[in-house]
Amino acid sequence: MEHNLQDTISLLTRIPATFDALLRDLPETWTLRNEGEKSWNAFDVVGHLIHGERTDWMPRARTILQFGETKPFQPFDRWGQVRESEGKSLGQLLDEFAHLRKENLDELRAFNLRQEDLERRGRHPALGVVTLSELLATWAAHDLTHLHQVSRVLAYQYREAVGPWSKYLGVLQCAGHSSP
Amino acid sequence: MEHNLQDTISLLTRIPATFDALLRDLPETWTLRNEGEKSWNAFDVVGHLIHGERTDWMPRARTILQFGETKPFQPFDRWGQVRESEGKSLGQLLDEFAHLRKENLDELRAFNLRQEDLERRGRHPALGVVTLSELLATWAAHDLTHLHQVSRVLAYQYREAVGPWSKYLGVLQCAGHSSP
Repeated sequence: MEHNLQDTISLLTRIPATFDALLRDLPETWTLRNEGEKSWNAFDVVGHLIHGERTDWMPRARTILQFGETKPFQPFDRWGQVRESEGKSLGQLLDEFAHLRKENLDELRAFNLRQEDLERRGRHPALGVVTLSELLATWAAHDLTHLHQVSRVLAYQYREAVGPWSKYLGVLQCAGHSSP
Repeated sequence: MEHNLQDTISLLTRIPATFDALLRDLPETWTLRNEGEKSWNAFDVVGHLIHGERTDWMPRARTILQFGETKPFQPFDRWGQVRESEGKSLGQLLDEFAHLRKENLDELRAFNLRQEDLERRGRHPALGVVTLSELLATWAAHDLTHLHQVSRVLAYQYREAVGPWSKYLGVLQCAGHSSP
């Protein structure tokens, strides 16, 4: 399946409501527990998604459109949400994510990108040359990585409660596959 | 985290709306594609969740409460949804899932289960003795297994579109961990 801008926007549009339906007012025994050590809980993940809306996806899209390969992207801070989320409730974070995502998608649509725009190239500080198309596809896949992660983090809390069923539950076999 | 009935119900209540927010009216390029061979797409997964509402969770809870260990559960048919889903739209399946889940949770709440009820034991045809508490915890973890799966199946469609970012996206490294 090749990248299709409308398909990407369809998915990006739905993700804030998906996290909202799953997490809003869910007991904190689910949302504030992680997988141990420095792993993230659901609250951390929503904060990370907000940080991406502010500093990653659209700023990088603008960099590609304005500067092409001549100006590398700002590196993304994977712990950038810690201070920003401090003192906020999960409900506030879900509202903020929905609001920022909507603003970003309004701007993305207003770009009226054509196929030749999607092929424009930028420079990732570690990965080298990437296209605008790849950046936008990654925005969607990144949402899905964190939905995948949150479903795993929640299931982890019941890893013992399920008793002998644990071996049938794929999500309990998943140890995660990358840094968050 | 031990099993807590109210926490389980909180999660089970939210899952139909979560799938609805993610999948309703999402383009079929996302929802009807799978991970190859006999793997499931998002449409299959929602059908499977419906089949569980009809034949797995509450029927097994009733079996435990009525017969204890003397009557093993009916084996669950992991392909039972194929005929039931035939000719339906994903929107219809999402409606049906929400409706059946609500009915089942109404019945579960009406049981007014006490701690000693949750410790009652039944017999799984393959796993042997299990408790009602383990069954209900598994119902919630099973929802999460399939949310984990659907996020992976959707991301799989963009495994090439993301270009060099694929190595940063944990969901693209996940090959699944059990039969569906």
